[in-house]
Amino acid sequence: MAILCFNPTLSSPSSLSFPTKHPQRVPHFAFFPSAPTPLTSPSSLSLFPKRIMHNSPSSRDPHVTRTSALIDPDGGALAELVASPSERDALRQETSTLPSISLKQIDLEWVHVLSEGWASPLRGFMRENEYLQCLHFNCLKMEDGSVVNMSLPIVLAITDQEKEAIGAKESVTLLGPSGSAVAILRRIEIYPHNKEERIARTWGCTAPGLPYVEEAITPTGNWLIGGDLQVIEPIKYNDGLDHYRLSPRQLRDEFDRREADAVFAFQLRNPVHNGHALLMNDTRRRLLEMGYKNPILLLHPLGGFVKADDVPLDVRMEQHKKVLEDGVLDPETTIVAIFPSPMHYAGPTEVQWHAKARINAGANFYIVGRDPAGMGHPTEKRDLYNPDHGKKVLSMAVGLEKLNILPFKVAAYDQVAKKMAFFEPSRSQDFLFISGTKMRNFAKTGENPPDGFMCPGGWKVLVDYYNSLQSEENVVKTTVGA
Amino acid sequence: MAILCFNPTLSSPSSLSFPTKHPQRVPHFAFFPSAPTPLTSPSSLSLFPKRIMHNSPSSRDPHVTRTSALIDPDGGALAELVASPSERDALRQETSTLPSISLKQIDLEWVHVLSEGWASPLRGFMRENEYLQCLHFNCLKMEDGSVVNMSLPIVLAITDQEKEAIGAKESVTLLGPSGSAVAILRRIEIYPHNKEERIARTWGCTAPGLPYVEEAITPTGNWLIGGDLQVIEPIKYNDGLDHYRLSPRQLRDEFDRREADAVFAFQLRNPVHNGHALLMNDTRRRLLEMGYKNPILLLHPLGGFVKADDVPLDVRMEQHKKVLEDGVLDPETTIVAIFPSPMHYAGPTEVQWHAKARINAGANFYIVGRDPAGMGHPTEKRDLYNPDHGKKVLSMAVGLEKLNILPFKVAAYDQVAKKMAFFEPSRSQDFLFISGTKMRNFAKTGENPPDGFMCPGGWKVLVDYYNSLQSEENVVKTTVGA
Repeated sequence: MAILCFNPTLSSPSSLSFPTKHPQRVPHFAFFPSAPTPLTSPSSLSLFPKRIMHNSPSSRDPHVTRTSALIDPDGGALAELVASPSERDALRQETSTLPSISLKQIDLEWVHVLSEGWASPLRGFMRENEYLQCLHFNCLKMEDGSVVNMSLPIVLAITDQEKEAIGAKESVTLLGPSGSAVAILRRIEIYPHNKEERIARTWGCTAPGLPYVEEAITPTGNWLIGGDLQVIEPIKYNDGLDHYRLSPRQLRDEFDRREADAVFAFQLRNPVHNGHALLMNDTRRRLLEMGYKNPILLLHPLGGFVKADDVPLDVRMEQHKKVLEDGVLDPETTIVAIFPSPMHYAGPTEVQWHAKARINAGANFYIVGRDPAGMGHPTEKRDLYNPDHGKKVLSMAVGLEKLNILPFKVAAYDQVAKKMAFFEPSRSQDFLFISGTKMRNFAKTGENPPDGFMCPGGWKVLVDYYNSLQSEENVVKTTVGA
Repeated sequence: MAILCFNPTLSSPSSLSFPTKHPQRVPHFAFFPSAPTPLTSPSSLSLFPKRIMHNSPSSRDPHVTRTSALIDPDGGALAELVASPSERDALRQETSTLPSISLKQIDLEWVHVLSEGWASPLRGFMRENEYLQCLHFNCLKMEDGSVVNMSLPIVLAITDQEKEAIGAKESVTLLGPSGSAVAILRRIEIYPHNKEERIARTWGCTAPGLPYVEEAITPTGNWLIGGDLQVIEPIKYNDGLDHYRLSPRQLRDEFDRREADAVFAFQLRNPVHNGHALLMNDTRRRLLEMGYKNPILLLHPLGGFVKADDVPLDVRMEQHKKVLEDGVLDPETTIVAIFPSPMHYAGPTEVQWHAKARINAGANFYIVGRDPAGMGHPTEKRDLYNPDHGKKVLSMAVGLEKLNILPFKVAAYDQVAKKMAFFEPSRSQDFLFISGTKMRNFAKTGENPPDGFMCPGGWKVLVDYYNSLQSEENVVKTTVGA
């Protein structure tokens, strides 16, 4: 399967493959032309995955056992690594006989990610051969010669002391931050953790101040430990949000239950404004125009580690809830769930991970924005990444050929129509761009954004959050002053 | 095609593919077992490239037009970019009508590399889509969906002023260091040169002091220019060594003329000692044991930019000549030629380029050493790369599946047998390791290495070179002192 284009002039298979020369002549990703697109029926799209078609109402036969119509997970099957309830007692007993490693919060988030199969076909923290393929090729070769995308090293660092304590043992117990055993890592392999090389090849930058690096690489040990992970029971956070933490299996079941014939994923770590909503609704409209009967939106906020000035998960989930309650997005065709991965802020390298993990959850369309997973350079006054590289690299990524990449159309506040609308360069003076920083400043200062920027319920969540921050700051100041 | 193993226990196709888990159980590269290997006939090697067999004497039919038996170039055909003699006058006239860019010596070396097809299927300096694929995936996707390896960015940097002078023009003239036009770059694309990201992703390190970076990246412009290269006439250096600079086409013709049925390449940038020779001769013996009738060695010293303390090309070529004259290598089955690429010292990333370029010259076996293309870390007291990573990454490299990787056996000076021999751990005390640094120190101080370390003629070339350096130093000191 190759990248599916919306532009009907680009529908022959040969024009959809990746040229190595003059790539500018053959767009690598779907475009939303500004003129209305003629209806293109699925049957005319030769690259359309046939198994999705099985789910269209016309072809369903009530006498035939229905199999899922969703895109296959990488490697063919979800790598689900949580032990069955009957195995758990024996596992808990075994954990006490093994040397142990203490996980930090981010490590636990990766155990969560691995345990549910988001990183399929990975069955545990990377061994060195996987790590090297990831660093150098952003993909893994499978035994059958096929290739799956794998752009971020999913690794576990240990210290010299931990390595020594493990000795020649073949398995280790992983202890959660609270001290209780959460998993066993088997057939382990320990290899050097060259932090400089890992950082340089993952971020394309080694400047101090990269949030994930400061939090989860620099302070960690000089060794990496890989192996097969067996998780004792499902990872829970008990923060009132666990019901949003649907596993790839649960999401696939839900998509099947709703009889989705297309799933389009929207990764985010920010509040949803009406520009985002416009894009998501417009994507659904286009998918319907293409002949899909029931495209389902996976609104999929990232739930793991984020940098200090990002809006916290609980606030974001409350804001997303309001967006659905206010009717900006249709609850009938939207699933809101938490993606448990921590955030690297590694731009073009990370966006591949964000896309790949959603394949495993059943998504066959992925919306990519400007500068995905990007941030400001930590020491220079510029973006860390070229804002176009994310979508370019994603569109050319090895092992992601089966995913349909949908580039983000730019939305801005249309001061004439008094709503968020797709930017029209011909009347650029009518549009107001409201950046994340500007939005946060509005919320912090209590100033209202223009009407129609965000639904009132969602906006109130943000204002309340920033008010609470300021109250906290005042308390701190008062305490320090006392 | 997959990686061919010498170990007959590993001859089934399924065991030769790349596993993603437990890779330690299936070696990724050929091993030379220390016990004699039973003869394995080519017909029993299911992954043996069939077209090579066509060249074996038994299958040759004098009535059938002979086609080359060599491995195909990447992309199927050599990208040869030198204009035919009849086109040259018109091209020279055109060059004077175009904006121009002045090449530095390393840029000219890349023009040379590109012009002869070493980088096939590349047809010029990389455009951004090729550059991004190279940085992120170390490979390029072809229009037919196949993938070729491409690990080093082959790019041309220009300054703000040069970019401005080019304006909207579609072609530019490339001027050699002497000021004369050497090529035209057509259908150009100019894009930002993010040096930090390029360095980090290529070297896995951004510390100051990387030789290629200091020479060819840091001092260059903030833009890269890609396009299709048309070179006016073959690149010559007029340094008395041009007869060694055989193009991939010329090498292929020579391999065909000698009726080679296997070509094994040995990349080097150092003098050849008897340990290297032992390895090369042993490789030939093994290939004969496998059933090849006429394996030819391509002894292929790198001819472009090297760091200041490497032995210069002319001295190395003189030394290599003596090695053949002294009979250490057999001239009948050896071709000595210069590989025109500049050296990056980028370890596991660069070794892929070294291997890939030799496919284009017709080699189907590649000998990989410990720490290939490695060096000391520029600011820390350690190797820049893990010495094992080069062969591991090469053996797993995307787009190099058709090349047979032969890992270097460790040779050292056997003080009992008084010759270079393969290291035997069981009597490690008998062996003396002579590093490149130690060898250079011997030559510098006039001390002789142990008998049998290097042929006397080759050693004398090195001693003379270091003597001449010291004479030069004395002249400089005297001059400064005067």
